[in-house]
Amino acid sequence: MRREAMSRLRCHISISLDGFVAGPNQSEEEPIGEGGELLHDWVVSLAAWRETHHLEGGEENENSRIVAEARGNIGAAVMGRNMFGPIGGGPWDGEWNGWWGDDPPYHYPVYVVTHHPRDPVEMEGGTTFRFVTDGIESALEQARAAAGGKDVMLWGGGQIISEYLAAGLIDELELHVVPIVLGAGSRLWDGLDGPMKYELVRVVEAPGVTHLKYRTGLSDSRDPA
Amino acid sequence: MRREAMSRLRCHISISLDGFVAGPNQSEEEPIGEGGELLHDWVVSLAAWRETHHLEGGEENENSRIVAEARGNIGAAVMGRNMFGPIGGGPWDGEWNGWWGDDPPYHYPVYVVTHHPRDPVEMEGGTTFRFVTDGIESALEQARAAAGGKDVMLWGGGQIISEYLAAGLIDELELHVVPIVLGAGSRLWDGLDGPMKYELVRVVEAPGVTHLKYRTGLSDSRDPA
Repeated sequence: MRREAMSRLRCHISISLDGFVAGPNQSEEEPIGEGGELLHDWVVSLAAWRETHHLEGGEENENSRIVAEARGNIGAAVMGRNMFGPIGGGPWDGEWNGWWGDDPPYHYPVYVVTHHPRDPVEMEGGTTFRFVTDGIESALEQARAAAGGKDVMLWGGGQIISEYLAAGLIDELELHVVPIVLGAGSRLWDGLDGPMKYELVRVVEAPGVTHLKYRTGLSDSRDPA
Repeated sequence: MRREAMSRLRCHISISLDGFVAGPNQSEEEPIGEGGELLHDWVVSLAAWRETHHLEGGEENENSRIVAEARGNIGAAVMGRNMFGPIGGGPWDGEWNGWWGDDPPYHYPVYVVTHHPRDPVEMEGGTTFRFVTDGIESALEQARAAAGGKDVMLWGGGQIISEYLAAGLIDELELHVVPIVLGAGSRLWDGLDGPMKYELVRVVEAPGVTHLKYRTGLSDSRDPA
């Protein structure tokens, strides 16, 4: 299934060599699990990342260009409940509005997949959080309708990305491959039926990380040659 | 542990995006498991591969240079019993001399790790198969002593590479990352204690595969910055 003519679902995520997107024992204190912060060293040092978290300073390097590219041409987004709020938190209490302050760095509608219904929350700067309780396909459909012809970003976390991958709904996947072996944690691909073929779009070698962008959703049939 | 001053243990292997080096249900008919042959499409089409299997023709492309580089400066090798002989075969019957005919493509001593003792077998062209029954560290030690200052190649299969990786004995690991998701099979890293840090040596984008070479065996400590 190729959807190049319409709004694409794009995703980018940091991953260890052994395929983990979070370390073991995720908790409120260690939301990316033990050792999981090693996956994000390359990005949290960037000025582009610090700016979206209201921090000054930071580096500019080849990774800055990759982050800007990954964030470009996005009209709406989907994220999982565990990215929006603290892990293990209860149903929405009507006060939690995400990690990003009054002016979140999205500036477009963000569809949060959750089991707990809640009215939309309009933030400053154009970000609106909308809560979707009828599954990932519905969230994608609503985000596409809201994206105004631009692409939809699947922000994460790892668990919901795995669900979208398993459902074959992601059009473009960029892996930020970090040269570590975590040994345990959450795998990006787990329990999928294979084989599935992707197509490499491009590779960029950058400080502390290698960026591999793939077009997904291709046929699993063998090439005739 | 860095061993740059001495003979290094080097390894290169094709791997799927989800970390599998063989598909599920390996058997005599499907030695790389179901779908596993997709991991090797990029290499079996090469003239360099066909030549070592006494076949004519084949392609020359960027992958040819990678294969030549991976095979250069090798003075001895280690391989697992399942690479030397058919999977599920019994103890050595004294007649099986590998898959490669009378003149195997190695031309150096090859140490086969097995539970079944057997006298060395001298083949044509300088290849000698020696059988090691006291484990992977002994095999490596013997291969290093025989390598004459050159490096030692760990040929595979996947299972013995996983054992050497878990033991931290590999100095340089090249992953031929094939853009497929197998979903099941044998993982290269499985049950290791993490985190372990590697260091990227270089990346090459080539037809059907991306080559990522890493220096392994680095400290797992965080960088001070």
